[in-house]
Amino acid sequence: MAKKRNNRVKQITEAFIKAENIVLLSHVSPDGDTIGSMLALGLALEKMGKKVHYYNPDSVPGNLKFLPGAEQIKNCLPDSPPEMMVYIDCAEIGRAASPPAEYHNVVTVNIDHHISNTYYGSLNYVEPGAAATGEIVYQLLRKLSVTITKEIAINLYTGIVTDTGRFSYGNTTPKSLKIASELVKIGIDLVILNDTLFEQKTLPQIRLFQRALNSLEILNQGKVALLTLTKADFRETEAEASLSDGFVNYARNIDHVEAAVLLKEYSESEVKVSFRSNEWLDVNKIAHKLGGGGHVRASGCTLHDSLPIVKKQVLTVLEEALKLGRNR
Amino acid sequence: MAKKRNNRVKQITEAFIKAENIVLLSHVSPDGDTIGSMLALGLALEKMGKKVHYYNPDSVPGNLKFLPGAEQIKNCLPDSPPEMMVYIDCAEIGRAASPPAEYHNVVTVNIDHHISNTYYGSLNYVEPGAAATGEIVYQLLRKLSVTITKEIAINLYTGIVTDTGRFSYGNTTPKSLKIASELVKIGIDLVILNDTLFEQKTLPQIRLFQRALNSLEILNQGKVALLTLTKADFRETEAEASLSDGFVNYARNIDHVEAAVLLKEYSESEVKVSFRSNEWLDVNKIAHKLGGGGHVRASGCTLHDSLPIVKKQVLTVLEEALKLGRNR
Repeated sequence: MAKKRNNRVKQITEAFIKAENIVLLSHVSPDGDTIGSMLALGLALEKMGKKVHYYNPDSVPGNLKFLPGAEQIKNCLPDSPPEMMVYIDCAEIGRAASPPAEYHNVVTVNIDHHISNTYYGSLNYVEPGAAATGEIVYQLLRKLSVTITKEIAINLYTGIVTDTGRFSYGNTTPKSLKIASELVKIGIDLVILNDTLFEQKTLPQIRLFQRALNSLEILNQGKVALLTLTKADFRETEAEASLSDGFVNYARNIDHVEAAVLLKEYSESEVKVSFRSNEWLDVNKIAHKLGGGGHVRASGCTLHDSLPIVKKQVLTVLEEALKLGRNR
Repeated sequence: MAKKRNNRVKQITEAFIKAENIVLLSHVSPDGDTIGSMLALGLALEKMGKKVHYYNPDSVPGNLKFLPGAEQIKNCLPDSPPEMMVYIDCAEIGRAASPPAEYHNVVTVNIDHHISNTYYGSLNYVEPGAAATGEIVYQLLRKLSVTITKEIAINLYTGIVTDTGRFSYGNTTPKSLKIASELVKIGIDLVILNDTLFEQKTLPQIRLFQRALNSLEILNQGKVALLTLTKADFRETEAEASLSDGFVNYARNIDHVEAAVLLKEYSESEVKVSFRSNEWLDVNKIAHKLGGGGHVRASGCTLHDSLPIVKKQVLTVLEEALKLGRNR
């Protein structure tokens, strides 16, 4: 097992200066931080005269397609081996692609902020204290003395603003905001950026949200908010299931609600359940009872039964836990 | 007319140091910046040993009640005259309360960031380049060399984060983010703060939003999104009309929509209309035609007719404007 230890930044910058052919890799189900950080680093390396290949196994989400350089991202690796493969925002190498057998002597660099990172690189630059990999890449570019252009700034800001939930998650630090400030100085249109990242909605998404709101039930004297999406809802609105990801949070944010539940009917015998709680209810325990898991305030499970049966089962377990109350 | 000119900051800090009884005033229909900035300044002045009276003509909105010091805000002025009245975030003195006749020799201080400020104070500290009055108060406190406590930091951050729309409006500057960074360093729980300010919803608000979404019509080949709220919607959801303020933006953010309209039926012969546009349509012109006004991308009018008649009228005017197209 690799030692859980970072290499000196100088070693890493020297490796970058030396390499001429570099492959940058971002993780499956890409988000703003992996894509933004990869593009920022890549654009900087291009400015340093390097040949850069951008890799992501999936397609770039619609709201990230505007990022400068996004059109260069490919879902395959180059045939001729590079000198360096840089993994961006990947806790494990399996989140992207391992070096193929025909790549010889390739140096792997691991740049990430996940606490679970396995230090799989030949060179590692892992900072679990950073809110986003974008923060680490920002520091690296400063060390490399590359000019941070507007295009690079937009990518880095996107990494930071998405991974901190617009500076609202617990991972946000003074440094996150300080770097954001430096990047805005370079000239980012924050109106367009925030609109594109957070506000724009497709019609199917709105229609699905409408269905979810119409299904809202407030139960247990206002303590439980339940949303239900049926197979018909997904079919008729032409919305993918992933578009409903944030809906359960919306239910959780209703005044006086302690527990929010979202039921997604995938088929007649498969229902995905998401739980959220606000102040005291341990929804990890609840999900566990139903064969799932997660965290104290956010968890989930998948039940193989019909929607009415799952609904009854979930509400029974919830009701019991609520009855026991917060003093248990 | 007062000269449109600021006094030297030194003059202002000296006045603060001298005064012992100070009344702080925030504006009608209070928002996070006027309340947060007032409380931040007041808590600091209290720490300097001053007697502080906090004034707002209205009640503090529910999502701002958590702000440290908010419980001290009164909707009346003290009987005995203070030495100083400080207007916070008020473009005109009429946004708060003029000094009553029995107040003699009171120094009025005007701290604000609105470009329309009329420089009505005996001392003026107006910075139209500041995104929020919270930024100006932050600077002032630095000049006064007061320790910025956690309670003060929470208030200032609230002013900045609300007036910049979570750092997404065009007024956001590198300085806004830099000050935010300094404030977070003092120790703000950003999760609780953001949740309280932006995420929490009351059930009537959700129910009203549900009605609005159910009314959504996509017209003119997807270019127009129309939301309608009837008298019955407000009555049956027990929601105040002000709770629907942001809904029209939601409609504007639908992919491919150029113009969004929200119709609010106040009575059988009064409908309030809000317009928003995305890229090219001048909705100020449209509102003008209907007897209202506003800005190029956000405007409104009130029409004294029945809902069906108003709807027809609004859609006709819109359709004409859309037909003329963006090249006019």
